[in-house]
Amino acid sequence: MEKEKVNVVGVIGAGRIGRLHINNMRNMPNVRLKTVSDPQADHMKDWFSESGVENLTKDYKNIIDDPEINVVFICAPTSLHVQIITEAAKAGKHIFCEKPICFSDENTCKAHKVVKQAGVKFQLGFNRRFDRNFAKTKELVKNKAIGDLHILKIQSRDPEPPSLEYVSHSGGIFMDMSIHDFDMARFISGSEVEEVYVVGGALINPEFKQYEDIDTALITLKFENGLVGVIDNSRQAVYGYDQQLEAFGSKGSAKVNNEKESSVEVLLKEGVKSSNPLHFFLERYNDAFIEEVEQFFEAINNDEEVPCGFVDGIMAQRIASAAKESLLTGLPIKVEKYQ
Amino acid sequence: MEKEKVNVVGVIGAGRIGRLHINNMRNMPNVRLKTVSDPQADHMKDWFSESGVENLTKDYKNIIDDPEINVVFICAPTSLHVQIITEAAKAGKHIFCEKPICFSDENTCKAHKVVKQAGVKFQLGFNRRFDRNFAKTKELVKNKAIGDLHILKIQSRDPEPPSLEYVSHSGGIFMDMSIHDFDMARFISGSEVEEVYVVGGALINPEFKQYEDIDTALITLKFENGLVGVIDNSRQAVYGYDQQLEAFGSKGSAKVNNEKESSVEVLLKEGVKSSNPLHFFLERYNDAFIEEVEQFFEAINNDEEVPCGFVDGIMAQRIASAAKESLLTGLPIKVEKYQ
Amino acid sequence: MEKEKVNVVGVIGAGRIGRLHINNMRNMPNVRLKTVSDPQADHMKDWFSESGVENLTKDYKNIIDDPEINVVFICAPTSLHVQIITEAAKAGKHIFCEKPICFSDENTCKAHKVVKQAGVKFQLGFNRRFDRNFAKTKELVKNKAIGDLHILKIQSRDPEPPSLEYVSHSGGIFMDMSIHDFDMARFISGSEVEEVYVVGGALINPEFKQYEDIDTALITLKFENGLVGVIDNSRQAVYGYDQQLEAFGSKGSAKVNNEKESSVEVLLKEGVKSSNPLHFFLERYNDAFIEEVEQFFEAINNDEEVPCGFVDGIMAQRIASAAKESLLTGLPIKVEKYQ
Amino acid sequence: MEKEKVNVVGVIGAGRIGRLHINNMRNMPNVRLKTVSDPQADHMKDWFSESGVENLTKDYKNIIDDPEINVVFICAPTSLHVQIITEAAKAGKHIFCEKPICFSDENTCKAHKVVKQAGVKFQLGFNRRFDRNFAKTKELVKNKAIGDLHILKIQSRDPEPPSLEYVSHSGGIFMDMSIHDFDMARFISGSEVEEVYVVGGALINPEFKQYEDIDTALITLKFENGLVGVIDNSRQAVYGYDQQLEAFGSKGSAKVNNEKESSVEVLLKEGVKSSNPLHFFLERYNDAFIEEVEQFFEAINNDEEVPCGFVDGIMAQRIASAAKESLLTGLPIKVEKYQ
Repeated sequence: MEKEKVNVVGVIGAGRIGRLHINNMRNMPNVRLKTVSDPQADHMKDWFSESGVENLTKDYKNIIDDPEINVVFICAPTSLHVQIITEAAKAGKHIFCEKPICFSDENTCKAHKVVKQAGVKFQLGFNRRFDRNFAKTKELVKNKAIGDLHILKIQSRDPEPPSLEYVSHSGGIFMDMSIHDFDMARFISGSEVEEVYVVGGALINPEFKQYEDIDTALITLKFENGLVGVIDNSRQAVYGYDQQLEAFGSKGSAKVNNEKESSVEVLLKEGVKSSNPLHFFLERYNDAFIEEVEQFFEAINNDEEVPCGFVDGIMAQRIASAAKESLLTGLPIKVEKYQ
Repeated sequence: MEKEKVNVVGVIGAGRIGRLHINNMRNMPNVRLKTVSDPQADHMKDWFSESGVENLTKDYKNIIDDPEINVVFICAPTSLHVQIITEAAKAGKHIFCEKPICFSDENTCKAHKVVKQAGVKFQLGFNRRFDRNFAKTKELVKNKAIGDLHILKIQSRDPEPPSLEYVSHSGGIFMDMSIHDFDMARFISGSEVEEVYVVGGALINPEFKQYEDIDTALITLKFENGLVGVIDNSRQAVYGYDQQLEAFGSKGSAKVNNEKESSVEVLLKEGVKSSNPLHFFLERYNDAFIEEVEQFFEAINNDEEVPCGFVDGIMAQRIASAAKESLLTGLPIKVEKYQ
Repeated sequence: MEKEKVNVVGVIGAGRIGRLHINNMRNMPNVRLKTVSDPQADHMKDWFSESGVENLTKDYKNIIDDPEINVVFICAPTSLHVQIITEAAKAGKHIFCEKPICFSDENTCKAHKVVKQAGVKFQLGFNRRFDRNFAKTKELVKNKAIGDLHILKIQSRDPEPPSLEYVSHSGGIFMDMSIHDFDMARFISGSEVEEVYVVGGALINPEFKQYEDIDTALITLKFENGLVGVIDNSRQAVYGYDQQLEAFGSKGSAKVNNEKESSVEVLLKEGVKSSNPLHFFLERYNDAFIEEVEQFFEAINNDEEVPCGFVDGIMAQRIASAAKESLLTGLPIKVEKYQ
Repeated sequence: MEKEKVNVVGVIGAGRIGRLHINNMRNMPNVRLKTVSDPQADHMKDWFSESGVENLTKDYKNIIDDPEINVVFICAPTSLHVQIITEAAKAGKHIFCEKPICFSDENTCKAHKVVKQAGVKFQLGFNRRFDRNFAKTKELVKNKAIGDLHILKIQSRDPEPPSLEYVSHSGGIFMDMSIHDFDMARFISGSEVEEVYVVGGALINPEFKQYEDIDTALITLKFENGLVGVIDNSRQAVYGYDQQLEAFGSKGSAKVNNEKESSVEVLLKEGVKSSNPLHFFLERYNDAFIEEVEQFFEAINNDEEVPCGFVDGIMAQRIASAAKESLLTGLPIKVEKYQ
């Protein structure tokens, strides 16, 4: 029976996100965690011994070259993505890759060709699509429950800014952080973004400027089908991870609110206190990380379309590039179309 | 045209509630505020000069004896209600009276007879019935939008306890405070209360005990048609006037939440702060006080049933008496029926 | 005593907003409603007879020329504002004027000079500043309760679009509708807007285009002190008047939510239903309309600064002009400074 | 190192709750799922093969007699609890037992003696104590954040009534359903219940009466330290599992609200729709079921007090007995103390 086929998985990169996927896959039926690779493997013995994975290696080639492994998770640094994608695809392995694919549009497109030729499944880790709240809103929009979409608002704020060291090689706020929101904009609207305009600044930490980066951004989006959108990003919402969205249309509006740490309200003389949003993405998107991988395995097992593919990655990256150019020029910038 | 008849009003008692009604009636079309009486009239010159009322007198008989006045508002102390009701009814005047009618069931019933014989309108000031939220919930119950009613919960708490001096002549928590909730229970359910059981204590201020009174009460109600209810009362909700209700039924539930001082939420590192409920009854029931009087005048002008009458007052008082007996005996007590 | 001085008021224009102010002033102490003028006076006998105003006239000159009248409310069409302001100021009367002052910046500035020379008080009707929720948020921002302001979001949507006839002479969405939001942006931030960028369209009713107007707009704002802002406007939120705002800063965020028709929630098998926002501005800003006029009279009586003056009107209009230009050119546009 | 000791577990009973615990324990470090027993073992091959448990047996004696197993989970029918507890305790095994312990107070107390003599850990499955919201409220009450507790309100309603067949052997609503709420009352208040009074009826399904059972109950509680409480139970809240609580005190109030299926709100012309509470206990208390077992293993590993013990079970059962007697007599009933 097709459904009972066991997928044999290799995970490349055992940092935070690699370990997250490994932990989630432990409980999935018909998944065998065969090998995990990481250049720092020597310092990971303790973690590995309880990880549930069979083998630990320093060299990811041991995964690529293992004929038993049919699925590869790429959780390595962005700079290695294209190289690993290319090798894995040529080796005929299905690929789950974290975002972004690559900082270079040219290299991203090259990798896309390889993947298409190899005919393997490729899913990108835009985990938020799989959050029950965003997924429900997508359905409401698709079913025209709120009529035609007129305005899309995305509020996306991290609880605390990354270190300057991280900023120096992050690819900038648009490629590193807003890219999730660009994908969300395309996902919810079902339309391509035509033009981008950005205002913002390094209002939290002026030192971001030395890397031509900002920490606060308002990004206006014009879509092909006429609707308009705005994303606001901040690297520091002191009250926690703020992940909200509103889809406003001709027949009503759908609003995704934050999920909170607890449902407890305390009523005191000085006012009513309630809890903050769930602290960060590990808490808020815990279930979404599981859901995205389960849908990936389903697509493999049933030979179906993946729910989030290569073109989704390319388009989000192109919006990010346009946003960067808008910030530098002070002008609205067209997003390059995908042919 | 009947509708344009001017009602000429006399108000007996110019304390807080008397002034409130006067202020509200100033803007009502076809209402003429002719006379206000108060034993303390000598000390009210400043207020009177801006009150919009034509005459101020110490003796309420001047209102009873004025043939031009066709409507009397009784805002005097409870101990005078029956006497004034009797005189006003015999003089053929329509009566709006604050609650409770009287601490004695016997005298209340006597006054009722007089009013019935006189054929004048009599409305009791159970203002909460006219709050948009409770009125809407009444409609939902009546229309069976939530099916058959199974459980009724009333949460009714004052922001701060009255003075001991007030407690000494208030008639006790059930007659003074819970009486509004007893009326609400009958109003929402459309059913009579059959039996009452009380637990509670003087938990806020033990000195209440010297007046055989308590400040915290849980009152269980059995209704004639099978549903059950509970009222919780506290004389001190430090966060403000807490006036909530839930009508739970076979097809769903209708919940009245508090109205808040503002809609502003402040999100801080230490949590989310929002505002307290509106402070007390003047703020929360501002519109309801206007609505009850407008409906009273409508009933007069169109010679229709008043929305809240003598029997409503009698029954709420009888539930209060049963509650007091339950507290003293520790047993469930039957409520005397009205024939 | 200064406080007891009676202000004698003339109201020019007895349309919806004129009548609203008249009704609110009826209950204000020390305000005498002497005259109301309207070209349609002949058809207003019924309303006038119950309005509480002493005289009704067709010609507003009767108000300007009345030496007893010291305060004028200008509720006439925008096209007449400058003319009436000029005459009223020269006659030494204090002026309350509805927004916008004038569609022409040049004429607005001329009128400003006249008012300054006359030394009379001039207050503009940006009523939303006086809403308890926005006023509280202004205080929170001013007191740095949320730190330095980084992002300002204003959500401002009408329940239903105006008629095409109205659109034809409204001055366009920015001058007619967004102007309130431009003032709110300046009011909350305490900073001037430097640059404006607009995207939007006639998504609700394409016929708006024939008047070079739109019905859906996203307006990005760059402020002088570095913060960024966005306003979203729609002429049609089918669920009611949507008036929300968020001030997001370095130490937290303050969010103004909508006020609702009722606090009742109904829990049914198919989900939880709660009520819509208050329907439109008459309901939502009822108290704010009273508060703005009370503060106006206080400023007159105590010879203090008015809370919303001529320059506030000029700047809001200039932002509106820049917004219009941005829409036409597709580019961000600088806002002309006020010297 | 003490912490790394592996606990070897046997699970008696592989119904819904047994399987739930097994599934949760699969991911716990240092837990070995050795054996599961169930009389219906023959029909459980499919489930067993993916359960992660090593052995499946029909006879629970195989677990009791296995010297390697040091921890037993009792998920068998209530009627077998005392017998299994006795055997497991005598065999020196730590015990996790589902509620209630036993319908007979006498037999429960006998089992308690055996457990005490054996010196094994015994934890009762009052899972709600481990819900983050109730646990937080317990802390707030304990820390006097809301002052002295005056009123405790528990709202506990199932989404749909059980079958009549289930009702026939459930032990009645108080022993089967309210028992969780009785434990919650003791847990939150930190005080014993002194007296119970019940009103209610078979309002959803009159056929419950044939088993002397009801489906709708209002239970009033008097506590030893003066506070008062009320529990309302319904077997059918059509909108979902309703699990709320309020702890009201001298300095404020702490309110646990429901957790919802999603955070999405849909604003339409006919009102605002939001999602229902999580459907039932598996959804709402998913994390609590894990937390209770983790704390059980911690208590074993560190030889500490369990968070919920034998006496907690006895007292909840005695309140249930008093409630039943109150229903039958119509009188308030004292709860038997535990010496």
